[in-house]
Amino acid sequence: MKPVGVAVVGAGYWGPNLIRNFAASELTRLRWVCDLSPERAQQVIGTQSEVNVTDDLDEVLQDPEVEAVAIATPPSTHSPLAQKCFAAGKHVLVEKPLAESLEEGRAMVEAADAAGLTLMCDHTFCYTSSVRKIKETIDDGELGDILYFDSVRVNLGLIQRDVDVFWDLGPHDLSILDFILPDGVTPEAIAAHSADPMNVGQACVGYLTLPLSNGGIAHAHLNWLSPTKIRTTIIGGSKRMLVWDDLRPGQRIHLYDSGIDLEPVDAAKRREYLVSYRAGDMIAPAIRETEALRLVVEEFANSIREGRAPLTDGRAGLRVLEALTAARQSIAQSGAMQQLGQTR
Amino acid sequence: MKPVGVAVVGAGYWGPNLIRNFAASELTRLRWVCDLSPERAQQVIGTQSEVNVTDDLDEVLQDPEVEAVAIATPPSTHSPLAQKCFAAGKHVLVEKPLAESLEEGRAMVEAADAAGLTLMCDHTFCYTSSVRKIKETIDDGELGDILYFDSVRVNLGLIQRDVDVFWDLGPHDLSILDFILPDGVTPEAIAAHSADPMNVGQACVGYLTLPLSNGGIAHAHLNWLSPTKIRTTIIGGSKRMLVWDDLRPGQRIHLYDSGIDLEPVDAAKRREYLVSYRAGDMIAPAIRETEALRLVVEEFANSIREGRAPLTDGRAGLRVLEALTAARQSIAQSGAMQQLGQTR
Amino acid sequence: MKPVGVAVVGAGYWGPNLIRNFAASELTRLRWVCDLSPERAQQVIGTQSEVNVTDDLDEVLQDPEVEAVAIATPPSTHSPLAQKCFAAGKHVLVEKPLAESLEEGRAMVEAADAAGLTLMCDHTFCYTSSVRKIKETIDDGELGDILYFDSVRVNLGLIQRDVDVFWDLGPHDLSILDFILPDGVTPEAIAAHSADPMNVGQACVGYLTLPLSNGGIAHAHLNWLSPTKIRTTIIGGSKRMLVWDDLRPGQRIHLYDSGIDLEPVDAAKRREYLVSYRAGDMIAPAIRETEALRLVVEEFANSIREGRAPLTDGRAGLRVLEALTAARQSIAQSGAMQQLGQTR
Amino acid sequence: MKPVGVAVVGAGYWGPNLIRNFAASELTRLRWVCDLSPERAQQVIGTQSEVNVTDDLDEVLQDPEVEAVAIATPPSTHSPLAQKCFAAGKHVLVEKPLAESLEEGRAMVEAADAAGLTLMCDHTFCYTSSVRKIKETIDDGELGDILYFDSVRVNLGLIQRDVDVFWDLGPHDLSILDFILPDGVTPEAIAAHSADPMNVGQACVGYLTLPLSNGGIAHAHLNWLSPTKIRTTIIGGSKRMLVWDDLRPGQRIHLYDSGIDLEPVDAAKRREYLVSYRAGDMIAPAIRETEALRLVVEEFANSIREGRAPLTDGRAGLRVLEALTAARQSIAQSGAMQQLGQTR
Repeated sequence: MKPVGVAVVGAGYWGPNLIRNFAASELTRLRWVCDLSPERAQQVIGTQSEVNVTDDLDEVLQDPEVEAVAIATPPSTHSPLAQKCFAAGKHVLVEKPLAESLEEGRAMVEAADAAGLTLMCDHTFCYTSSVRKIKETIDDGELGDILYFDSVRVNLGLIQRDVDVFWDLGPHDLSILDFILPDGVTPEAIAAHSADPMNVGQACVGYLTLPLSNGGIAHAHLNWLSPTKIRTTIIGGSKRMLVWDDLRPGQRIHLYDSGIDLEPVDAAKRREYLVSYRAGDMIAPAIRETEALRLVVEEFANSIREGRAPLTDGRAGLRVLEALTAARQSIAQSGAMQQLGQTR
Repeated sequence: MKPVGVAVVGAGYWGPNLIRNFAASELTRLRWVCDLSPERAQQVIGTQSEVNVTDDLDEVLQDPEVEAVAIATPPSTHSPLAQKCFAAGKHVLVEKPLAESLEEGRAMVEAADAAGLTLMCDHTFCYTSSVRKIKETIDDGELGDILYFDSVRVNLGLIQRDVDVFWDLGPHDLSILDFILPDGVTPEAIAAHSADPMNVGQACVGYLTLPLSNGGIAHAHLNWLSPTKIRTTIIGGSKRMLVWDDLRPGQRIHLYDSGIDLEPVDAAKRREYLVSYRAGDMIAPAIRETEALRLVVEEFANSIREGRAPLTDGRAGLRVLEALTAARQSIAQSGAMQQLGQTR
Repeated sequence: MKPVGVAVVGAGYWGPNLIRNFAASELTRLRWVCDLSPERAQQVIGTQSEVNVTDDLDEVLQDPEVEAVAIATPPSTHSPLAQKCFAAGKHVLVEKPLAESLEEGRAMVEAADAAGLTLMCDHTFCYTSSVRKIKETIDDGELGDILYFDSVRVNLGLIQRDVDVFWDLGPHDLSILDFILPDGVTPEAIAAHSADPMNVGQACVGYLTLPLSNGGIAHAHLNWLSPTKIRTTIIGGSKRMLVWDDLRPGQRIHLYDSGIDLEPVDAAKRREYLVSYRAGDMIAPAIRETEALRLVVEEFANSIREGRAPLTDGRAGLRVLEALTAARQSIAQSGAMQQLGQTR
Repeated sequence: MKPVGVAVVGAGYWGPNLIRNFAASELTRLRWVCDLSPERAQQVIGTQSEVNVTDDLDEVLQDPEVEAVAIATPPSTHSPLAQKCFAAGKHVLVEKPLAESLEEGRAMVEAADAAGLTLMCDHTFCYTSSVRKIKETIDDGELGDILYFDSVRVNLGLIQRDVDVFWDLGPHDLSILDFILPDGVTPEAIAAHSADPMNVGQACVGYLTLPLSNGGIAHAHLNWLSPTKIRTTIIGGSKRMLVWDDLRPGQRIHLYDSGIDLEPVDAAKRREYLVSYRAGDMIAPAIRETEALRLVVEEFANSIREGRAPLTDGRAGLRVLEALTAARQSIAQSGAMQQLGQTR
């Protein structure tokens, strides 16, 4: 397979990670780094590199060897930059969130479709060994039906002027949820609650609740104000429960083979049950850890070459964006439940 | 101090614990155990006891040496039994929740007030060494302002026909919150979300969200469907954070002396801050563990003798009941926020 | 099966636990409690019991309905009391250590043998759910060959005048080791090191090292001077490793299915290996917890009725006693290795 | 201060870490990397570096700008290489263990002394934030007298042909012990026990016991055959206990302020004590983590410029070497205790 010629736009916080992985993968060939500050771009790629540096996106887009562009700039610029790339016939990988508004996001997906180009959203967590193991476990039916998904993502975060805790941390849990839910199970609505107890002008503590189409429920606790870090997700299934503790290297996933067995005594009377409890083994499966971003970069390249949608395509980015937008609306309406599902 | 003559009504699940503690304390004298099944009552007190057994509450109430009655029967009977006791001039300790409806609860408080009698609600958790240490820590100002209170109470629970996860587990967190919040800080409203993903006819997974009057937020995750037990409460303060893990005997409370320091750059522009992070020590204070129920029983006796309101009086029970009732209404309205504060 | 008539001698620290279990089991009938202080004996059994109380062992031994005696007195009295019982034709259960000296212990075993009576040593830990699970795991070959056994038993202990840390805590690990080692694998020798760093006149920190007959090694760290409690045993096998953390209720045993695979490149040159490492799952098996002492009491009764040696018979007690005695000698000789195996 | 001109000999396993730190520090100037394979050396420093590469140590030693040489080659070569450097008037930093034999080690120390040159041993652990915090805690008297030091260093290790578990892992614990013991307290002797239960031709499980001059005891459990990693050191003091868990980033050190208070009842009778137990707080101090090897490199440069002995000088290396050599002798004599202290 011929390596995909790539340019990275944005050499700030996340860009250097993309640059490193595009440079290292044999499936891609990094041609350009474009940043408002060419000095910063140069510093990231080093003095000896053959990669070109510019502050002019047009120059990049005119290079016929650039087939694809990775956009790692602030969210407000995602849409205009991506549209420019599509107009120039380039595939696009964009950081999360896909765009600043649902309208922009939809237009991006449509533009990519119309041009027959790939639009991929960098939902990095979906490419971690842990989340892929979770998806595999669910797909294999080991958990049974998904009863609940409960995530706690708590940390001392950098308080930002233009982003609240939902738009900062929420895309992680929303994209993971979107990725692992089995076919046919979707979040049907979302309610959000938040607080800004230190008066910084942004929600710093937030809760998301998403009723699922199968009667289950998903929930995320997002918190910037905790000196101890917690990153734990519990997924309760009708057969087994899975606990993912992302801060426990070497043993991040635990599967509990215990639970409740219900036997309806009388089908007519729904409320009468013989309840029995199973106490079963706990298993921490061995997981080979790999760098998630390397897989992101390679999925991008492979999906372009194979002419198929990437695992986390523009539509996945759009679903996360829809949930974030609806959460914002819910906050504005004192936590009122907002319907989802327009973007599918 | 002359011991308070006491009768216990209900020798089922919780009654025997009350009976044991009333019998053991020097501040009380257990006179009667009253149960629909006198055999069960007899079994609990043993064959050699001088305590009387009956299935007739009237007999108990006619005994002039009975000054106080502890009610450990199903919630629907709390109100009629308590009213009978008040009519007979007896002080009352009642299990949580105070009553089945807010109206009944209010009438109970009013009846006790009118008769000049003590009404205490058995919010047992408020008498544990951990919760008393938490209250002390907050009262001493060690946490600073309360920014958030987040509780996770997750367990494989016995699925019950007539009680959902809110009414079963919620009183614990609501009474603790009521107990520890500093003067002047109150929950202003409540929203509730739930799921019954196994179709048992009762909410088995639930979330409560309570905006606080100081701009903070309280939240509880209540869950009957998890084979692993979690009982962790995080209380974030402006100065320090406290983590209470009730499943870690000998080291249940951890205080983190790290956090965020904000310095407003310009008072006029609220959104500009110099943020700095402190990395501080963590302290697990030594706590002498005592049986909570023993303290419940002694607080009941002391408050009667001293003619003062007990720490967890009928009004505290009423506030918890108001929150539970409002949560039920929120569920009926798809999670819409319900105002609180009518009962203060 | 007719219940075994039993007397308990000694109502001090451990006696009450035996008394409770003998009274509760259907396989035994508690007839007497004998203690130097009949008041203490009476207090333990309560005022309503039909069990007899005495301070005169002869009275007990003359009762033809007493078939067996449990001895829970200080170690120095084990031998004379047991010999008296054997002389009276009674079976004996004795607390650990079996006796104060190896000679006494041997004489006890011989006396029991000569009289055709049961002598059982109360190695309580061998009857816990954890140790039985460990034995089962080893017997099933799940661990493969036993490479090492490493135990840490560390705690703030009551400093005693007449017992050092080896004689206090050592019997636990030595009896467990004796119990779980597969047939044909035995400790061949023992070395002991200790310190009395607070100058209390007794070894308070001690280490035991026991080379095993299969080339493996066993080791125990015994420590009275630690405010944090540790009770962890690691058993390394050629196939799997087992970690037993006795302070983690509900998840005391963890099995690691990872390890080393050796492939000799050349049988002639022992030192050349292809080493490969397996990273495998970790499993915490579900274990139903039962009271160990209840099983002790029932094993005693069953072994008497079935005329067979109990699981932890006098010989097991003797092997532990031999190791303790040899450890004492090792200490006296600056840690010199002492041969074991005289008692098998 | 003028940067110290440095050459690194050996670009294999550990060398690249030294090279990176010498290159990054402003206190040193890396001039040469010398390796049997100049290609490997070149690969480590990269194609763009001004650092010279050679396989000829003489070329390095002839460079007048090279003031100091860091030796990261196999132990058997430490002595001849270091002696060559001293003969050429160069200061030396050498990896642990200092040399392969005590005689060689002594000769190295003497040669450095005679030439007035610095000899430093790279006991990296002594420069970690954790060990420096431990030393500080002990020096401040917070632990009181050192009663015991117990280390467990357990891991699946690479089985090596020419090194056993003592020479591989032992230098860590021996150098830490040497570093943190307060003035006047020294290990007086050493006993070693080991096993090679998989028949690989090397001790894979080992125990070291070192009686201390103050009546305390030090002990290390070294183990290559465990799939789970444990790196825990407990230091019991007369006032407090410290637990160092090196696998718990952000909370590696815990201080327990609980323990035993002894009050002799009668000075004449040593064995009578009023024992009382204190239950105190536990504190995990905040520790700023820095790269240990950077501090090694800077201590080397500073000690050269200041003409003083480095923190971990040749004599410290020699003390560790003496203990390792004595341990080997102890193994050969079935664990017999070997005196230490010849090297002080």
